[in-house]
Amino acid sequence: MAPQYAPSLRSRLAPLLLCLQTLFIIISALYFKNRVTVNKDDLRNFYSEFQDVNVMVILGFGFLSTFLVRHGFSSTGFNLLVAAIASQWALILTGVESWFSAGRITVDLKSIVVAELCTASALIAVGSVLGKANPVQLTVIVLLEVSGFVLNEWLLRTLLKVRPLSSIMLLHIFGALFGLTLTWIMYRKGSEDGFEKEKFDRKSGLFSSLGTVFLWMFWPSFNSVLVPDWTPWRKLGAVSSTYLALAVSAVTAAAVSVLCSPKGKLNLIQMQSCILAGGVAVGVSMSAVHEPWEAMAIGFTAAIVSTIGFKYLKVLHHQKHFTFTLINTNFIPTVMITRATRFAVFHICTLFITISLSVSMGFLTGFLIKWNFCRPLQNKKCFDDQAFWEFPHLAAHK
Amino acid sequence: MAPQYAPSLRSRLAPLLLCLQTLFIIISALYFKNRVTVNKDDLRNFYSEFQDVNVMVILGFGFLSTFLVRHGFSSTGFNLLVAAIASQWALILTGVESWFSAGRITVDLKSIVVAELCTASALIAVGSVLGKANPVQLTVIVLLEVSGFVLNEWLLRTLLKVRPLSSIMLLHIFGALFGLTLTWIMYRKGSEDGFEKEKFDRKSGLFSSLGTVFLWMFWPSFNSVLVPDWTPWRKLGAVSSTYLALAVSAVTAAAVSVLCSPKGKLNLIQMQSCILAGGVAVGVSMSAVHEPWEAMAIGFTAAIVSTIGFKYLKVLHHQKHFTFTLINTNFIPTVMITRATRFAVFHICTLFITISLSVSMGFLTGFLIKWNFCRPLQNKKCFDDQAFWEFPHLAAHK
Amino acid sequence: MAPQYAPSLRSRLAPLLLCLQTLFIIISALYFKNRVTVNKDDLRNFYSEFQDVNVMVILGFGFLSTFLVRHGFSSTGFNLLVAAIASQWALILTGVESWFSAGRITVDLKSIVVAELCTASALIAVGSVLGKANPVQLTVIVLLEVSGFVLNEWLLRTLLKVRPLSSIMLLHIFGALFGLTLTWIMYRKGSEDGFEKEKFDRKSGLFSSLGTVFLWMFWPSFNSVLVPDWTPWRKLGAVSSTYLALAVSAVTAAAVSVLCSPKGKLNLIQMQSCILAGGVAVGVSMSAVHEPWEAMAIGFTAAIVSTIGFKYLKVLHHQKHFTFTLINTNFIPTVMITRATRFAVFHICTLFITISLSVSMGFLTGFLIKWNFCRPLQNKKCFDDQAFWEFPHLAAHK
Repeated sequence: MAPQYAPSLRSRLAPLLLCLQTLFIIISALYFKNRVTVNKDDLRNFYSEFQDVNVMVILGFGFLSTFLVRHGFSSTGFNLLVAAIASQWALILTGVESWFSAGRITVDLKSIVVAELCTASALIAVGSVLGKANPVQLTVIVLLEVSGFVLNEWLLRTLLKVRPLSSIMLLHIFGALFGLTLTWIMYRKGSEDGFEKEKFDRKSGLFSSLGTVFLWMFWPSFNSVLVPDWTPWRKLGAVSSTYLALAVSAVTAAAVSVLCSPKGKLNLIQMQSCILAGGVAVGVSMSAVHEPWEAMAIGFTAAIVSTIGFKYLKVLHHQKHFTFTLINTNFIPTVMITRATRFAVFHICTLFITISLSVSMGFLTGFLIKWNFCRPLQNKKCFDDQAFWEFPHLAAHK
Repeated sequence: MAPQYAPSLRSRLAPLLLCLQTLFIIISALYFKNRVTVNKDDLRNFYSEFQDVNVMVILGFGFLSTFLVRHGFSSTGFNLLVAAIASQWALILTGVESWFSAGRITVDLKSIVVAELCTASALIAVGSVLGKANPVQLTVIVLLEVSGFVLNEWLLRTLLKVRPLSSIMLLHIFGALFGLTLTWIMYRKGSEDGFEKEKFDRKSGLFSSLGTVFLWMFWPSFNSVLVPDWTPWRKLGAVSSTYLALAVSAVTAAAVSVLCSPKGKLNLIQMQSCILAGGVAVGVSMSAVHEPWEAMAIGFTAAIVSTIGFKYLKVLHHQKHFTFTLINTNFIPTVMITRATRFAVFHICTLFITISLSVSMGFLTGFLIKWNFCRPLQNKKCFDDQAFWEFPHLAAHK
Repeated sequence: MAPQYAPSLRSRLAPLLLCLQTLFIIISALYFKNRVTVNKDDLRNFYSEFQDVNVMVILGFGFLSTFLVRHGFSSTGFNLLVAAIASQWALILTGVESWFSAGRITVDLKSIVVAELCTASALIAVGSVLGKANPVQLTVIVLLEVSGFVLNEWLLRTLLKVRPLSSIMLLHIFGALFGLTLTWIMYRKGSEDGFEKEKFDRKSGLFSSLGTVFLWMFWPSFNSVLVPDWTPWRKLGAVSSTYLALAVSAVTAAAVSVLCSPKGKLNLIQMQSCILAGGVAVGVSMSAVHEPWEAMAIGFTAAIVSTIGFKYLKVLHHQKHFTFTLINTNFIPTVMITRATRFAVFHICTLFITISLSVSMGFLTGFLIKWNFCRPLQNKKCFDDQAFWEFPHLAAHK
C-alpha cells in the first residue's frame, strides 16, 4: 500500500528540497554579508525576544495541530521543514531592497527576526491545509506565501507609506486569507462529514495545549520585538498590552465557550484557538492602543467574536475545526478592530491591498498545487502520518 | 449523564467569569495607566526573567499535575484560566496603595511580575484541590487567596517593616497552608482509598515531568527576579544559590526516595515534588544565604525533609499524592530553614502573621465553596475531564 | 521479579549519591566563594543565554531519547540526576586552577555556564548507553567523563595554547568518542537484533520531537554563550551562522532521509538526529566561519554526511538507533569540518590529543562499570522503566 506514495516523496520532494537549498546557498554566497558594525546593545536588546519568537514559530505553531491523533509527526516535522525553507527565502526576499541599493544583503539579528515573522505568516497559511497537503505542496505554498507577503509589505510601504512595523503586523490577515482561499480551492467533495482521522484524544490534546501555551506565553515578545528600542515606553506598552489582552481573552473565551456548548461544557480545540485572539488583535491595532483598558477591551471583544465565530462558521460550512480556527483566531478580530479604531480611507486602502493580494496569491497557489506534478493526497490518506513516515512495526516486515 | 453537570458551568461559571472580567476592565479603565517614563534598562533587565516566571506560572504549574490520567485537560486548562483571573486581580490589589497616594495604578513590567508571583501563590493553593473542585470553586479560591496574600504582604510591610522582597517570598508558605486548610475542609468521607481515577501512566508521567523540569530550570529566575538591579552581586548570588540548591536537591531526593521505597525503586511523583525543595527553601531564606555551601546545605536538608515527609505524612493521612506534595515541597523546608537561620522574635512574628492569615483565609474559603451555590462535584466525577470538557466521541452522538 | 533489582539501587545508588553529595558540599564549604565584584552587564549579557543552555541540557537532552516507549521516565529522570551530579563536579574541577592560584573557586554565571557545557559533553556520552546501564553506572560514567574532558581541555590549553572557547567546543567529539568506546565495551552478545523494548510509538515520538526541537531552537545560544562580550560582532556571527546552518540542515536532512529510505518515507529518529548536525558542525568550526554562506555550506555537508552515516553505519553494526545517532550527529561532521577547514599540524595535534584521551577514558570507564559492584542490567531489563521506577498498578498490590 505504501509504495504507491513513496515515489511522490523520492521523485518530487527530495530533488525539490536539494535544488532549493543549493539555490539558497548560492544566493547567500553571492550576496549575504554578516553585519560587522555591531555594538553590544544591538545584540542584547533583541536576544531574548528573538529566542521567544523562534520558540513560537517552531514549537508553538509546530505543536498547535498535534491534537490530530494520527498526524502528530507530520504536524511538527513538516512545520519545522517549511519553517526552515520559509525563513531562508524570507531572508533573501526582504534583503532584495538593500541588495539593490548596497549590492549585498546584511544578515543580523533584526533581519532574522523579520524573516521569522514572514515565516509565521506562511505557517498560519500552512496550518489551514495541514493534513490535506503533501510536503511538496506545503513547500510550494510557503514559497509563494512568503513572496506574496513580502510583496504586500513592499507595496504598502512604497505606495501608502505605511510604517514597516504596521505592515508586518498584517501578517495574520495575510496568512489567514491566503490559507482560507487555499482551503476553498482544495475543498474535496465527499469530505463534508470530516475526515475519519481528524479527531483528538487525551494525550494528543495535551500536546496541542503545549503548543498553544507557548504561543500564549510568548505573544508579548511577538508583538514587541520590532518596536524600536529608542522608544522603550512603546516597547513596554506593547508587552503589557499584549499580556493583559491575552489574560482577558483566556477568561472570556472560557465563558463564551461554555455558553455556546449545548451541554455547557468546554471545547478544548475552541479554547486553544480563542485564548490567542487577544494577542492577535492587539498586535494588529497596536498603534491605536494607548491605555491598558483599551487592550483589555480589545481582548474581550476579540475573544467573544472568535469564540462565536468558531462555533457558527464551522457549522455553516460543514467543515471541521482546523480550517476556521484560523479565520476566527486571526481574521475576524483583526478586521473588526482595524475598522473600529481606524476608520479612515488610509487604513481601508491598506486593508484592501492586503486582502486583494492575499486572496489572489491564494488562488494562484491553490491552482498550482492541484496540478498533477504535486501528486495530491487521496482522501483516505489525509491526516495520516503513515503516508510519509516510517513506523517501526512496519519497518520490521521489510 | 453529562447534562446534569452542564448547568453548573452554564448558569454559574459563564456569568461569574463575564461579570468578573467586565469588572476588571471597568477598574482598569478608571485607574490603570501605562508607565511612560521608562528607560531602556528598566525593560531589558527584567525581560528574560519576566518571561521565565511567566513560563513557570503557566506551563510549569499547568503541567505539574497532568500525571492524572483522566484529568489532563482540566489541569492545564483550569490552571491557565485561574492564572489569568488571579494575575488581573493581583494587578489591581497590589496597585491599591499607589491608587491611594497617586490616584492611579501604574502598569509596568515590575507590577506584572509582582502580580505573577501572587498568582503563583494562588496556584500552589489551587494545586491541592485540583480535581476535587469545579471551576467555579477554583475561581472563588484564587480570588480569596490573592486577596489574603496581598493583605498579608501589606500587614507585614506596615506592621513589621519586612522588606517587600522577603514578604513576597512567603508566597510558598501562604499558598501551601491556605491549600492545606482547604483540603482539610473539603475532605470527603469515603475517599480514604484514593479516588479511582487518581493514577498515572507512562505518557501522563512524562507530561508532568515536563512541567516539573520547567519549574526546576527556571527557578533561579523566580528567586532573582525581584532582587533590585542596583545590587547585581545579590542578583547573581540569588541565581547561583538557587541553581546549586536545585542540583543538590535533585541528587539527594533520588537517594532518599530509593531508601524510602520498600522495593528500592524510585517514585516519579515523589521525585517531581522533592527535586524542587531546594529552590523553595533558598527562595525563602535568601537574605540569610551568603555562600554557595550554605545554599547547597539548605538544598540537601530540604530535599531530605520533603522526601521523607512525602512518604510518611501521606500514609498518615490516608490521602494520595497531591495533597501533601504541596506541604512537603513548600511548607516543611520553609519553616525549617526559617527557624534554623533566623531564630528571632522578628521572624517568628512574620511567620505567625502569615500562618494565622493563611489558615483563617483557607477556612473562610473552604466553607464558602462548600456552599450549594457552587454545586460541588460528586465523588465519582472527581479527577475526570469528562465532567467539564467535550470529547469528540461523545460529540459524535449529538 | 522486581525485588532482585531493588538491592542494586538501595545498597549501591543511595549510598553513592549521598556520599558524593556530602563530598561536594564539603568541598564547596572549603573553597567556593560567590563573586562579589559584579557589574550589571556581567549578569545581563549572560542571563538569557545561560537559561537557554540550561534548557538544552535538562530538557533537550532529557527528552531526546523519550521515543523509547518503555523508557521515558528513566530517560528524563536519570538525565536530570546525572546532569545535577556532573554540573557540580564540573564546577569543582574547572575551578581547580583558580584554587591553585587564588586559594578559592569563584562561582559566577560564567563558571556555571562552563560547568553546563562540560555536563553537555557527559550527557552526549551517557546518551549512548542510556537504557543499557543502571543509574550507578551512569553516575560513574559522568564523573569520569567530566574528569577526562576537563583534563583534555587543560592539556590543550597548556600544551598547545588552544583558546578556551575552541577547546570547550570539542565537547561533541570528546563526548561522542567516549560514548562510542563505552558502547563497544558494553556490547552484549545476543543483542544484535535490537532489544525488544527499543521501539517508539506516535506519542513517544512526539516527546522526543519536543526535546529535539528545543535543542534545535536554542543551539545558537549554545554556540554563542562563551564568545566574549567585547566582540559583539563575533557573538552575532555565532548566532546567525548557527541559525542558518540549522535551517539548512533541517531541509537537507529531510531530502537525504527520503532518498535513503527504500519506501521513500521519512524516518523520525533519523530526522531528529540529523537536523542538529549543522549546529554541531558550526560550533566546532566557528573560528573558521566568517560569512553566512560558509555556515550554510557546512550545515548542508554535515546534514548529508550524518544522514547517510545514520543509515549505513547502523546497518553495518547491527545496532539500533541510539548508538550511532550520536556518532553521526557529533563525530562525523566534526572531524570532517575540522579537517576540511583547518588542515594544519596544530589542529591535528588538538584532535589527536582529544581522540586519544576520550577513547582511553572510555575504555577505562567501560571496564570499571562492567565490574560486578555496579550490578549490570540483564538483557531483558534493558530499556525498561519498571526495573527502576514504581508504577501505580504494581504499588496497588503491596
